[in-house]
Amino acid sequence: MMRFFGYFRSSAAYRCRIAFNLKEIGTDFVPIHLRKDGGQQKSESYRALNPQGLVPTLEDGDLRLTQSLAIIEWLDETHPEPPLLPKGASARAHVRAFALAIACEIHPLQNLRVLDYLRKDLGLDQDGLDRWCRRWISEGLGACEGLLAARLQSPFCFGETPGLADICLVPQVFSAERFGVDLSAMPRIRCVAQACARLPAFEAAHPSRQPDAE
Amino acid sequence: MMRFFGYFRSSAAYRCRIAFNLKEIGTDFVPIHLRKDGGQQKSESYRALNPQGLVPTLEDGDLRLTQSLAIIEWLDETHPEPPLLPKGASARAHVRAFALAIACEIHPLQNLRVLDYLRKDLGLDQDGLDRWCRRWISEGLGACEGLLAARLQSPFCFGETPGLADICLVPQVFSAERFGVDLSAMPRIRCVAQACARLPAFEAAHPSRQPDAE
Repeated sequence: MMRFFGYFRSSAAYRCRIAFNLKEIGTDFVPIHLRKDGGQQKSESYRALNPQGLVPTLEDGDLRLTQSLAIIEWLDETHPEPPLLPKGASARAHVRAFALAIACEIHPLQNLRVLDYLRKDLGLDQDGLDRWCRRWISEGLGACEGLLAARLQSPFCFGETPGLADICLVPQVFSAERFGVDLSAMPRIRCVAQACARLPAFEAAHPSRQPDAE
Repeated sequence: MMRFFGYFRSSAAYRCRIAFNLKEIGTDFVPIHLRKDGGQQKSESYRALNPQGLVPTLEDGDLRLTQSLAIIEWLDETHPEPPLLPKGASARAHVRAFALAIACEIHPLQNLRVLDYLRKDLGLDQDGLDRWCRRWISEGLGACEGLLAARLQSPFCFGETPGLADICLVPQVFSAERFGVDLSAMPRIRCVAQACARLPAFEAAHPSRQPDAE
């Protein structure tokens, strides 16, 4: 069985959990606590697995994979059913662009190590940190709403079944709600998030349902 | 001919230029100046092409693609020679993870809009901004050096020919040098960057060689 190193509240780990569930792949979960012991992801033993010192890591025999989107693409190539990316090259490009719009433009800015730097090195208080997070999530999800504008009919981001775009969107919406971002001007995103929330694969991947949840 | 909307100094546009050159695909270049007119990427006409208001955008007939990694994967699927990703699923996952380690963990933090917020809203001076950039580039490239540690023999990141990983690495090294990041503890990265710099595809993609260079 594959070993999955994650943390209940990590968006990147949350993405992978949804993908495992959609593919119906069980994993042996190893919790890496991002706060305890000064951050278990920084330990020498974990860095030997993942030189970036980030969650998640997937271990399959001798193979060690990092970066959630690379893990999910690998999963989709090695376990093709149900597919998480559409067939045509241009459709795939749109789905990947949407996923990257979240993974590259929103999520990195609210990462723990960035928030730590803002607090410790730049002296930001909690209010300033919340404003920082809300700013990038709100601007970033607003642009994502624009990317979905032409697709008002489909229940999920890009079609009749959930895929990579939905896998990235749902954890970002979870984090938007945590930081009190106003999503009222993003009806398409709210609608997709609701459709996903009704699916067992998404439900079981929710941070509150994880063994390491606090 | 495809139309490519970019900016000479954008790392994301730089990545795409290297990919076009490796594939020997000519494009019709449309410069989008990120500073002039309050940022041409924010104009209504550009946002109609790219709702995120970021460069690059690739236009191929009716098709509009955004996000550099999605554009490069599309290019590799539609113009397979020379391949920018290896054949096996696990080899592909390692290359993608390396590319994402740059595109998700380093580049977003030194984006113009982030630096603008740090300066205008948080009052950081130039020295503080430089420290911010150096911190993430140095930490991020240090981790990338770790990802390459097992591959000391190959001239490029992951083999005998340049691919997606090198395409992401070279613009990041360019920006590291611009911000005065010390790369002396990263021999593998310096070695790959030097091998790439000798190739015409990389040379012609350099920011200083673009029509909109300043």
